[in-house]
Amino acid sequence: MESPRRPRLTPAIADVRRHVRALLPGAGPLTPGVQPGVLVLVGLSGGADSLALAAATAFEAPRAGLRAGAVIVDHALQDGSARVAAEAARQAAELGLDPVLVLRVTVEHGTDAGGPEASARTARYAAFDRAQSETGASHILLGHTLDDQAETVLLGLARGSGPTSLQGMSPAGGPILRPLLGIRRSQTRQFCVDVGLHPWQDPHNDDPRFARVRVRQTVLPVLERELGPGVADALVRTAAQLREDSSALDDLARDLSEQLTEHLHDHRGEPAGPGIRLEANRLAGKPPAVRQRIVRFALEREFGVTLERVHTLAVLRLVSDWHGQKPLDLPGVRVVRQDGWLIFTAPGPAPSKGPSRSHGTPRH
Amino acid sequence: MESPRRPRLTPAIADVRRHVRALLPGAGPLTPGVQPGVLVLVGLSGGADSLALAAATAFEAPRAGLRAGAVIVDHALQDGSARVAAEAARQAAELGLDPVLVLRVTVEHGTDAGGPEASARTARYAAFDRAQSETGASHILLGHTLDDQAETVLLGLARGSGPTSLQGMSPAGGPILRPLLGIRRSQTRQFCVDVGLHPWQDPHNDDPRFARVRVRQTVLPVLERELGPGVADALVRTAAQLREDSSALDDLARDLSEQLTEHLHDHRGEPAGPGIRLEANRLAGKPPAVRQRIVRFALEREFGVTLERVHTLAVLRLVSDWHGQKPLDLPGVRVVRQDGWLIFTAPGPAPSKGPSRSHGTPRH
Repeated sequence: MESPRRPRLTPAIADVRRHVRALLPGAGPLTPGVQPGVLVLVGLSGGADSLALAAATAFEAPRAGLRAGAVIVDHALQDGSARVAAEAARQAAELGLDPVLVLRVTVEHGTDAGGPEASARTARYAAFDRAQSETGASHILLGHTLDDQAETVLLGLARGSGPTSLQGMSPAGGPILRPLLGIRRSQTRQFCVDVGLHPWQDPHNDDPRFARVRVRQTVLPVLERELGPGVADALVRTAAQLREDSSALDDLARDLSEQLTEHLHDHRGEPAGPGIRLEANRLAGKPPAVRQRIVRFALEREFGVTLERVHTLAVLRLVSDWHGQKPLDLPGVRVVRQDGWLIFTAPGPAPSKGPSRSHGTPRH
Repeated sequence: MESPRRPRLTPAIADVRRHVRALLPGAGPLTPGVQPGVLVLVGLSGGADSLALAAATAFEAPRAGLRAGAVIVDHALQDGSARVAAEAARQAAELGLDPVLVLRVTVEHGTDAGGPEASARTARYAAFDRAQSETGASHILLGHTLDDQAETVLLGLARGSGPTSLQGMSPAGGPILRPLLGIRRSQTRQFCVDVGLHPWQDPHNDDPRFARVRVRQTVLPVLERELGPGVADALVRTAAQLREDSSALDDLARDLSEQLTEHLHDHRGEPAGPGIRLEANRLAGKPPAVRQRIVRFALEREFGVTLERVHTLAVLRLVSDWHGQKPLDLPGVRVVRQDGWLIFTAPGPAPSKGPSRSHGTPRH
């Protein structure tokens, strides 16, 4: 029940419900093992997007044999945030969602490299995690729209950290589902009008201190004006294809990375602490995109470090442009090429370079 | 010799020359078989980018054992274009480039789906081709800069035709070399100032009827203002990585596509006209990005058609979501699933659907 008075089935209502229906667990090919009666939680801010999602989920979940609740995260960053959270909780209950959790979180200021937005995000997803384990919910549904996705892709472009940053948000990643990624923000607003819901207007959504707000208010409108109205759609379509490409290469390279990685052993044949090697010639036979991933994944597994692209490329010059380079000291790992192998060890004094590093382990 | 008076080696001169040196044939790993004395041609418009390229090539080519000439394309689209071409030819000769070709082309209006810019581009590259075969040049060097590349990537984003459109221009694709893709446009201007060259200002470069001009004058400046000054670099870095990813997947899928494609035969075991089949289960075992490419490449080889993404996805629903669908009639090809195979034939009446299409070839 979306409102006491049963609304007409307008296009916005039909669209939003259809997208929710398609992504509800058990509805698509996503989670074939889901049992009826399973609980899903809608992450609700009280804004138009999540409110429309909450209403459509309250309508669709019972029809799919699921129960639907809501989780409201009070970030405690603005005056009156507790009141906003309480109002969202009231709306959720009125929509028939049950249980309704309000979780107040503490956003750590300045601890996250991505600034206050990233810190709030970290706290929010931790709260979703908690809500899931407290209620036993199978999934958390979030109200990100096509507009959010386009903004994410543009922000990623501006960072330039490559395909990963361009990928945008996944419609279904682990327990997080985003049924509205194909819905425009204007449609969620219309949905709320059509069913008589009154969404909260977050003042942060208009605060140009946030890069995302500048993208929303200035960058995307300029792009659409100068290059045509299809830009948001185009960004999102591109993101979907890049996600596919990147995931195919990741799968391929992850397997190869495990096959090609050899662990280092000491003279007694025992594992010699963290250390691996990769044969240069076997890397050379792979295309650069695969080669880079093989090295990156191997180092993530062994040393728990994720190399930046510039460092991965430096490692691979030991393959593609070998002319007797010195060992490379990178953040978290040391690399040297010896006898046709790339040898990766923990950073710090390397056994084979004893004399130049006086604090090294004595050599035997 | 870049000018009668030998210029100081300024940062702009050093940077442009270094990039040209790195990409000249024989200098890098690109063309190990190139013979000394080989000719390269600089594509010269007379603008700052190509003029800087021409000057730097005139300096570097002899030092790399190469000869350098120039090709100037007169598009005959603006009044006085012959005079502009003649002035560029004079500058080229003065820089010591030899031979200098001026080719006047006819741009076909309205024949190209991409509009007048695309038609001019088609005519220009055809002229480069002609210049190459007339002179026996090994390569054509073009003056596209990092700014051009960022514009290309943004224009591709606006089209949304996926990874392909995002890739940008290749630094080395066949005979075309683009040594300045790592150089900012401001550096080529500075180069011209430093060596005392007077570039031509193409009025088309300021004409907002062209999407590229709007990107240059409005979109990129807004992006840099709102998201930080590194946006052009970020776009270009991303494009380079996408080119790597896409090329790795293309190589992989092209091999698989050839392995998995079977040609159709008639009842005498002879090739039955254009027609191929792919086993649904073997496609299903590949990730979507690979699956799509396998189908796309197979149809390009057999039917000479390139499917749009939406059509490729429709074909693949016969694999991932098979529920007895009817044959699909797509532009240039008909697809049907039978006995676990996807069967691709020329469009039009299909042998197995005779009765519903009265003009079909009689069945025997």
